[in-house]
Amino acid sequence: MFGQIDPPHRLLMGPGPVNVHPRVLRAMAADMLGQFDPEMTGYMNQTMALYRHVFMTENRWTFLVDGTARAGIEAALVSLVEPGARLLVLRAGRFGLLLSEIAGRIGADIRTLDIPWGEVATRGQIEAAIVEHQPQIFAAIHGDTSTTMAQPLDGVGDICRRHGVLSYVDATATLGGMAVATDAWGVDVVTGGLQKCMGGPPGSAPITISDRAAAHIMARRHVEAGIRTAGSRDGARPRIGSNYFDLAMVMDYWSEQRLNHHTEATSMLYAAREAARIMVEEGLEARFARHRAAGAAMGAGLRAMGLALYGQDAHRMTNVTGVHIPDCIDGEAVRTRMRAEFEIEIGTAFGPLAGKIWRIGAMGYNAMKHKVLITLAALEASLRAEGFSLPQGNAVDAARASYDKG
Amino acid sequence: MFGQIDPPHRLLMGPGPVNVHPRVLRAMAADMLGQFDPEMTGYMNQTMALYRHVFMTENRWTFLVDGTARAGIEAALVSLVEPGARLLVLRAGRFGLLLSEIAGRIGADIRTLDIPWGEVATRGQIEAAIVEHQPQIFAAIHGDTSTTMAQPLDGVGDICRRHGVLSYVDATATLGGMAVATDAWGVDVVTGGLQKCMGGPPGSAPITISDRAAAHIMARRHVEAGIRTAGSRDGARPRIGSNYFDLAMVMDYWSEQRLNHHTEATSMLYAAREAARIMVEEGLEARFARHRAAGAAMGAGLRAMGLALYGQDAHRMTNVTGVHIPDCIDGEAVRTRMRAEFEIEIGTAFGPLAGKIWRIGAMGYNAMKHKVLITLAALEASLRAEGFSLPQGNAVDAARASYDKG
Repeated sequence: MFGQIDPPHRLLMGPGPVNVHPRVLRAMAADMLGQFDPEMTGYMNQTMALYRHVFMTENRWTFLVDGTARAGIEAALVSLVEPGARLLVLRAGRFGLLLSEIAGRIGADIRTLDIPWGEVATRGQIEAAIVEHQPQIFAAIHGDTSTTMAQPLDGVGDICRRHGVLSYVDATATLGGMAVATDAWGVDVVTGGLQKCMGGPPGSAPITISDRAAAHIMARRHVEAGIRTAGSRDGARPRIGSNYFDLAMVMDYWSEQRLNHHTEATSMLYAAREAARIMVEEGLEARFARHRAAGAAMGAGLRAMGLALYGQDAHRMTNVTGVHIPDCIDGEAVRTRMRAEFEIEIGTAFGPLAGKIWRIGAMGYNAMKHKVLITLAALEASLRAEGFSLPQGNAVDAARASYDKG
Repeated sequence: MFGQIDPPHRLLMGPGPVNVHPRVLRAMAADMLGQFDPEMTGYMNQTMALYRHVFMTENRWTFLVDGTARAGIEAALVSLVEPGARLLVLRAGRFGLLLSEIAGRIGADIRTLDIPWGEVATRGQIEAAIVEHQPQIFAAIHGDTSTTMAQPLDGVGDICRRHGVLSYVDATATLGGMAVATDAWGVDVVTGGLQKCMGGPPGSAPITISDRAAAHIMARRHVEAGIRTAGSRDGARPRIGSNYFDLAMVMDYWSEQRLNHHTEATSMLYAAREAARIMVEEGLEARFARHRAAGAAMGAGLRAMGLALYGQDAHRMTNVTGVHIPDCIDGEAVRTRMRAEFEIEIGTAFGPLAGKIWRIGAMGYNAMKHKVLITLAALEASLRAEGFSLPQGNAVDAARASYDKG
């Protein structure tokens, strides 16, 4: 028989999942409630209110999809995009590719704006692509952890609205760490996850939906046969291709109607609620500044080791840093040493960047000075042990200096 | 600002979710691991081994779908059933209807074997329907909580194999409480949930897949563009209609290949592993007997109050009992009184049974003598308070006697 859960106490400084805030872990230890108990629906309503702060929005429809961040992406796309609908996807990394991968299964007419990995698109490029392709929906990634670049989205929602296009943004890797300014951007649907800057575990995907996007989705509403009543009304547009990810049905459950769909993932709701509560208590600006300071110090420390950062300085995510693996160094040997000797995880990379860069995060509960300094000290020691010659102590000093100059 | 999570201490004696075993709640308080850390993949492998016991199978492919029980159902159907494939669905309640609802969105050619609610199908009826419709896949619910009936499945897998049909069974409501005899039944794919007899929270869906069903699914395998390498090979059959629920990709992640898909829902994996560990420690036969005893005592107690049970005695689920609401009694008033005065939840019903029956569960951590006795005493007092005349104390005595005669 296997023993009880007892994971090593490891510092997770990769691109996520990261260490979970202890308050979030404790929140999950609370027992269940019935799905329709007033206390349960009260917690659901509070969670909606909290995530309006997190998403910086007034959107009524702000709730949780029961699955990991990728579940939120698929729920958004399958509910927004009808088979045959034209979708323009901005792709500048693995997660941009994922959007078109998911949309392909929906049967969308996919058009793409492809940007080299490590770069971002300009507003002009986005508008030109929208004019060229005349899509019904535009989809983009805010922070694509595969490249560690953050796509600027100021003005993008306005461009979309001007051209009659619905917009979707995946903010999994930035939510809780960088400003995800749903209403200021003017975008229609944004999804996230808990396991990065929110400081929670993977398994719940917060989502926010504008009224016009909700109307679009509700036009595809369809009540299940098993709970259909004489008053049940369906929308005029084609039924959504998934039952579990049918946001019209999920919204019916999160509305005053409380129409039964799947059983809400109660423990994950407790986790999501507590993660948002911590964020609201800390204050959004203070939290974003904490991530900026950690990211800047990490970058300064890595450069002081003589390493080159990956991608464009102007568009770096503040919470995860891509860094080139030096020539003649086996990146996996360094990662293994970091884990075995220091119990610290840094990230590998995907596809064309595999073996070429590491991705070092400082997210959520880990976006803290001491964790940045420890990680840099351990990386320096590991690189030296692998035969890389570098000036001793400079990384920590540079990171400390970065914090001092604030 | 909302306060911390602090739910009322309520006894959940409905059809689920139910109170979670404290060991499972504590397991979720453990911190995260990286997705590919050897300790994490070790826990995944242990979870696979544990659920082979739970599903009474030797199937290699036994793992978790990251979502609630309904996510497991959709993952199984969307991965097994190609658009246009013929699917025969056995429907004898709301969850049978759900199977055809989900399959309809996949574009399956759906045929149905419809049985009146409160009854079950015979083997002969199932075989006749298979002969008539010649489906590629047969799908059924083991325990449909909407009717509280358990469909006998002995021999059903053999019938399907004889006719070259793949079989799927949803055992959400019975897994951990009644024998879900995957290999003895000879069925190909079975899914479950944690929030009923497994004594865990909703949010993880255990699944087991036979080798022949896995081969069928792997023929639809498709590697994502973002992680594709020169050696990536796709299957010959049509791509699965969902990315998140693409079991071929999820199996790649749970295999030695560890090909990245979505981030595993770590806390829910901890919960699922602990729930299975408790079950294996208790012993499957002892656990099933505990549920049988609780269900028998609950039924005896309800009858001793003068209430009539719903459905066929021979095919009752052992862990949830349907009972007719007496004429002239407002079922919701009784449920509200149970919750307000006794902090006990019993279940309402769906569709044609709404307002006609209550569903009273004794599942997982709640399938215990004292919880059965407390529930009966509280229901008796609540019925009397609502003006229903009944012999005082008989329910508890009858339940006690049911336990005594063992």
